[in-house]
Amino acid sequence: MSTAEPDIRPGEIAVPLPETFDAGVYFIGRIRTPWKRRDECPKNARGSDSECVIELDPRYAAGLDGVAGCSRLVLLYFMHQARRDLMVQRPRHHTAPRGTFSVRSPVRPNPIAMSVVRLVRVEGTTLSVVGLDCLDGTPLIDIKPYFASVDSVPDAVVERSKADSE
Amino acid sequence: MSTAEPDIRPGEIAVPLPETFDAGVYFIGRIRTPWKRRDECPKNARGSDSECVIELDPRYAAGLDGVAGCSRLVLLYFMHQARRDLMVQRPRHHTAPRGTFSVRSPVRPNPIAMSVVRLVRVEGTTLSVVGLDCLDGTPLIDIKPYFASVDSVPDAVVERSKADSE
Repeated sequence: MSTAEPDIRPGEIAVPLPETFDAGVYFIGRIRTPWKRRDECPKNARGSDSECVIELDPRYAAGLDGVAGCSRLVLLYFMHQARRDLMVQRPRHHTAPRGTFSVRSPVRPNPIAMSVVRLVRVEGTTLSVVGLDCLDGTPLIDIKPYFASVDSVPDAVVERSKADSE
Repeated sequence: MSTAEPDIRPGEIAVPLPETFDAGVYFIGRIRTPWKRRDECPKNARGSDSECVIELDPRYAAGLDGVAGCSRLVLLYFMHQARRDLMVQRPRHHTAPRGTFSVRSPVRPNPIAMSVVRLVRVEGTTLSVVGLDCLDGTPLIDIKPYFASVDSVPDAVVERSKADSE
């Protein structure tokens, strides 16, 4: 990636990335959503109750055994259109620059998003879910059961130095 | 990976993986834990209140701005010692074979684990956290803020067809 990216905004900081990757990922399916362009996506998953569809590559079909019993799932997916070199960034709905690891923006060294979704139904290798905010066609990289015992922390807080939306 | 893996257990199903990866990840740091061998690791993150240390590569230091304000973080890390081809597996503490996407085992096509941890302190590029169960030296791939508003679902359930621990 060029060190002179044209679209850096005031206050943003880009760093040179390593020359090689350390490991590889497989795209194991695709996520179908109603949103074809970045500016159509909900600001975050709370913003939408649209049903979205996970199309799992049939190669991995046997891995779905037992998934239908999960009321919630953790999905990991690859935000393949995001740049990876910004360590301080100014997402479109934020007023102040933010450290990359303090925001959920797709812009990060490994553009892997995590969403907790409600499972509506499983039909073959197709899962209908609610709670996504990503672009149509986003590559899926993992499906996990959500365990309230370890994943749910209702009183977790994020303190911001400035009043701002997350 | 050979199609004749020697260590497949009764009831497990392996599939041929794609010949090439679809995307790459950077290891952005290392996780220091008290556990040097698989059989020393807690069964899951509930099993331990040990303080673990995240050593972030200083290249990414600027990305930590704002992280200290998060009481909980989502960590993604790469279980680089896990095999990736089992779609039905029998993790060591389970009695019945399980679909890979219905368990949190490191064995999966993309061996990326997700843990919600409590942030104890940030010192430079070192983060002390509680809530991990992985091997010492595990590669880190992402740090995210945990937002109770989207990530916490206290009443989520996982129904199993057999009485068994997760």
